[in-house]
Amino acid sequence: MTDWLDGWQRCGKPATLTRRFTFEGYAQTRAFLAALAQLSETLGRHPQNISFGTTYANITLEAENGADFSESEKQFAARIASLAEPRP
Amino acid sequence: MTDWLDGWQRCGKPATLTRRFTFEGYAQTRAFLAALAQLSETLGRHPQNISFGTTYANITLEAENGADFSESEKQFAARIASLAEPRP
Repeated sequence: MTDWLDGWQRCGKPATLTRRFTFEGYAQTRAFLAALAQLSETLGRHPQNISFGTTYANITLEAENGADFSESEKQFAARIASLAEPRP
Repeated sequence: MTDWLDGWQRCGKPATLTRRFTFEGYAQTRAFLAALAQLSETLGRHPQNISFGTTYANITLEAENGADFSESEKQFAARIASLAEPRP
């Protein structure tokens, strides 16, 4: 079983999850951000903050209730992570 | 004459320019980021970092030579700022 928190760092009050994704180049970074924008649009849910440069993106998610992450928030984190996985 | 530095905060070594742009909503923020991505593509020049949430974007530009901003870098800053101006 995959731990939904794998790769994410949890901290703070309000509770936040942060994770840094790195990419080979700007094209890959842009592709990840475009896919994330699409996912956010679909789910009506957006990361609290996205910070990116040419080869990385740092994603911050904040728990809506400030303390605990709901199942749908955990799924959002997992789906974001899957967007960054290399395509076969 | 418009001062190219208007609205940007300059600091640090290497020299950076930072500026926070705020928007009414996510749609406006996304529109700004899309326009900036297009401009970056055209110029082959990208901000060092872009950090954004639903209603803001913080832009960081870094001087290529580490100390002074070239004319084209100043123009890039001015053009980024103009992207955030409300359309008539």
